[in-house]
Amino acid sequence: MQSARTLARARGSISRAMSTSPSGLVPRLEQLLGRDAVLTQGDSMDKYCRDWLGQYGERALAVVRPNSTEQVAAVVRACSELKVPLVPQGGNTGLVGGSVPRSGEVLLSLERMHSVRFFDQDSNVLVAEAGCRLQETDEWLRREHSRCIPLDLAAKGSCTLGGNVSTAAGGVHVVRWGGLHSSVLGVEAVLADGTVVDGIRTARKSNTGYHWSHLFVGAEGTLGIVTAVALAVPPAPRNRAVAMVGCADWEGVRRLVHRALGPDGLAETISALEYLDAGSVDMAVTWGGARDPLDERYPYTVLLEAASADLSSCSQRLEHVVQSAIVAEEAVTGVIASSTQQERELWAVRESVTLALTKRGAGVKLDVSVPLSRMAGPEGAVVAARRHLANELPPGWLSNATSADFESLCGAGWNGGVDEGGVCVVGYGHVGDGNLHLNASIPSLRKARGMPEGREDALFAGAVAWTPPQLADAHSRVGAALLPWVPQWITEHGGRGASVSAEHGVGVSKLSYAGLSRGEGEELLMRRLKAALDPLNLLNPGRVMTSDH
Amino acid sequence: MQSARTLARARGSISRAMSTSPSGLVPRLEQLLGRDAVLTQGDSMDKYCRDWLGQYGERALAVVRPNSTEQVAAVVRACSELKVPLVPQGGNTGLVGGSVPRSGEVLLSLERMHSVRFFDQDSNVLVAEAGCRLQETDEWLRREHSRCIPLDLAAKGSCTLGGNVSTAAGGVHVVRWGGLHSSVLGVEAVLADGTVVDGIRTARKSNTGYHWSHLFVGAEGTLGIVTAVALAVPPAPRNRAVAMVGCADWEGVRRLVHRALGPDGLAETISALEYLDAGSVDMAVTWGGARDPLDERYPYTVLLEAASADLSSCSQRLEHVVQSAIVAEEAVTGVIASSTQQERELWAVRESVTLALTKRGAGVKLDVSVPLSRMAGPEGAVVAARRHLANELPPGWLSNATSADFESLCGAGWNGGVDEGGVCVVGYGHVGDGNLHLNASIPSLRKARGMPEGREDALFAGAVAWTPPQLADAHSRVGAALLPWVPQWITEHGGRGASVSAEHGVGVSKLSYAGLSRGEGEELLMRRLKAALDPLNLLNPGRVMTSDH
Repeated sequence: MQSARTLARARGSISRAMSTSPSGLVPRLEQLLGRDAVLTQGDSMDKYCRDWLGQYGERALAVVRPNSTEQVAAVVRACSELKVPLVPQGGNTGLVGGSVPRSGEVLLSLERMHSVRFFDQDSNVLVAEAGCRLQETDEWLRREHSRCIPLDLAAKGSCTLGGNVSTAAGGVHVVRWGGLHSSVLGVEAVLADGTVVDGIRTARKSNTGYHWSHLFVGAEGTLGIVTAVALAVPPAPRNRAVAMVGCADWEGVRRLVHRALGPDGLAETISALEYLDAGSVDMAVTWGGARDPLDERYPYTVLLEAASADLSSCSQRLEHVVQSAIVAEEAVTGVIASSTQQERELWAVRESVTLALTKRGAGVKLDVSVPLSRMAGPEGAVVAARRHLANELPPGWLSNATSADFESLCGAGWNGGVDEGGVCVVGYGHVGDGNLHLNASIPSLRKARGMPEGREDALFAGAVAWTPPQLADAHSRVGAALLPWVPQWITEHGGRGASVSAEHGVGVSKLSYAGLSRGEGEELLMRRLKAALDPLNLLNPGRVMTSDH
Repeated sequence: MQSARTLARARGSISRAMSTSPSGLVPRLEQLLGRDAVLTQGDSMDKYCRDWLGQYGERALAVVRPNSTEQVAAVVRACSELKVPLVPQGGNTGLVGGSVPRSGEVLLSLERMHSVRFFDQDSNVLVAEAGCRLQETDEWLRREHSRCIPLDLAAKGSCTLGGNVSTAAGGVHVVRWGGLHSSVLGVEAVLADGTVVDGIRTARKSNTGYHWSHLFVGAEGTLGIVTAVALAVPPAPRNRAVAMVGCADWEGVRRLVHRALGPDGLAETISALEYLDAGSVDMAVTWGGARDPLDERYPYTVLLEAASADLSSCSQRLEHVVQSAIVAEEAVTGVIASSTQQERELWAVRESVTLALTKRGAGVKLDVSVPLSRMAGPEGAVVAARRHLANELPPGWLSNATSADFESLCGAGWNGGVDEGGVCVVGYGHVGDGNLHLNASIPSLRKARGMPEGREDALFAGAVAWTPPQLADAHSRVGAALLPWVPQWITEHGGRGASVSAEHGVGVSKLSYAGLSRGEGEELLMRRLKAALDPLNLLNPGRVMTSDH
């Protein structure tokens, strides 16, 4: 098969490139971009070559920082001629090792391409370079044009629009605006041979050929380097209402989700629909500094947000949904924020979980799509993972309070058990999208930043008190138990509603099991597309797909 | 270049195929599908082989009607082996000759694949076969699940979901829901070699590889045959409000559009934003049987619709927008429908224009995107086209009342001039999307169906009284004057906001000027994608792109 031959040839080139930097590469890059834009040594390279979780990345042959599409194209042509693989990088906030180099690769950062090219006030379309930061651009758009970027995620302060598009970033507002395919009208991209393809359009409708720009949404830089994007942007919401409710069981959550999304729900104003289990809330409170606004710890906490570009308040509708849910016994209790400060406090519970998990100690992070019936509760993925871990790990390793029957433990005075020691399995995520973040937390021996003096010892005061070698062993045993077991379970029980990577992408970390969510025909089609656009396999090789077919 | 070689080879095959049907083709197709599913002669073939405007299509080698994905794949494999080109067809409602055969081709109708496979009530995702009719499926969805397909267009009764996706259908609700990229979660497609690629997902988020399904949105069947689609569907609106306003000039329309889409506009409830110029309204009234609800004929009439899934009324917000527009002198007058019957009457003005144009006599139909400032009014495309025609055509041919300075002619008692005879140039369309339908109407000698006896003569009572040969000459002169002049004007004056085909696609009719809206890099990329997925150029060859590169 032609594609296989081509890829095999490319692999040979990469192997050669990995041993040494081709002679002339660095001087050529310096000539093209100027010396300041090329880093080849020193600590300044580290932030580009290592991902923010510290899990992936090796020293690049060079880090280049072009400031224009022409410079990107020149770098790509130079690397193509020398058969040197290239890794594009936006804000370097990825979680799957997709935007950091391996030895023998050149890292191309888009950070110096950070201009808004223009905003079209007739069509409400933003045209911006790939390196524009999400939050900064969003704030500018709200301030100047009363519009917003329909995308919000934890990394918004650092991540870039090019990275968002290249990874098909999701986040908390997909339930409102849909994914990035809803907003992307076109991209400008540099292909593997240096060809610049300009698909930037401000027309909202155009059917004059293939909608190829959408192929670059979620391609993780393997088909071309996105240098600019055209995004249709909606009116910025001018009022919102936020509520948090406690549910006694998963069936209640599921019915509440149906209610919120259904005919008597939040209608067009729906803005976010998130859930956290008791362990996640406890994680946020104990390690993330959040305050649980509910009177006691419930098995499931659901956050609902309504928002409107209209000035009339959304709170009445949200109150109606929450009250109806309580009357229908879907929820036990609920609070509705009555000030911006309170809204922030409710969101803090949800938003601090990720950082709290990192503070307690890195573990295994899974980001999957799964039908609601199989997300949590007795039949769900989180309980299945806990049961599986309980079988696989030595007795006492798994935190009791996040064990399979934790729903029955919840109630007044229960703290979620995160401080009890051992391995905690928690589930939270974008329940309105069927997107579950399943995490196994393993306490760290490192002093957790920002935690009170001595607090970290509590993690080992439970059934298990680990020594450093035992901790390393714990990490590998938990990882081995959950991967690929959870993705397999999700695939088996979730059918077409399952995805082994909902929003984080594949990168290198999910290569071994991404195939669970793509059939034989898809794999073939992907390889044909890759071979057609990057026949030498030089753009982010070995990400999204292995190179060994 | 490889792609060029491949395409050249394929062209050779097509030329051979055109002269005779390869021996064994028909028996093989009959063996695969059964005799009833293969048509090779008789009148029953005509409806598949000719487009509904009667402009395109030749007799196919065979018309095949598979009833399953497996049968589609079998047909594709058979045609691929015999090097016979295939044209896929949904409801055959296209306007650009993209879904009817040329001599030597096999026509593959998806009409027998009309089952809804399932509806996922957790994720609100519809999975349906390509041949499902839009309107029928939408009505089922509303009835059974209180959801709707976020797509509405004139051909909804006949067009199919597979055709909608393959042509990236637009319509009146793009201003609310965005285009089909917003809804499509995945497709099932049969590639040129018969490989079935199954991208049907009900998960709202999935990042486990390339988002290849979006490449089939708008590819017009040239990259593969879409056999099923997964669509995310929103809650069906349960109330709506419709208004129609008259504007004295284009600047008023433009400011009204900004108002409706802006911070004090219709916010999330916006559902449609359409405009018609005086000639279009007159066309709808004279030839379409509509009633003009405004007190007199204004230069521009704008239809606004608000809709909500919530039961609370939208009319208050719409009234506010209309009243504010009148106070700000953007609009002169307006009516707001106070019953469903009145809503229908307002919509009838807009919806009857297309058919009215056909009744008066076919002419030149253009469907373009253009920035608001260049759509209509003194600086706009419609006036530019009128001026150009006035120069190109013999004196008196162009209807006076739709001449370049028609804005000044409007007022009480003015009828728009459609009945005055001669060539009328009218503009209308989806003003909220920047999508202009520009039409030149040439009166027909055929008796217009549905018009009062003798009415058609009125068309020739003006400055021009044509004989049949003169009429044929008129058609070709108007066509030669407007094409490619208008697309060129649009491109020159519209910049990145221009598209020479907004929603109708390229097919064969726009091949000669589609290149105006795609740059060199895009053309190259498209050809690489085509060569990678259809190396023998057998799927809808010569549509979207010429085969002669």
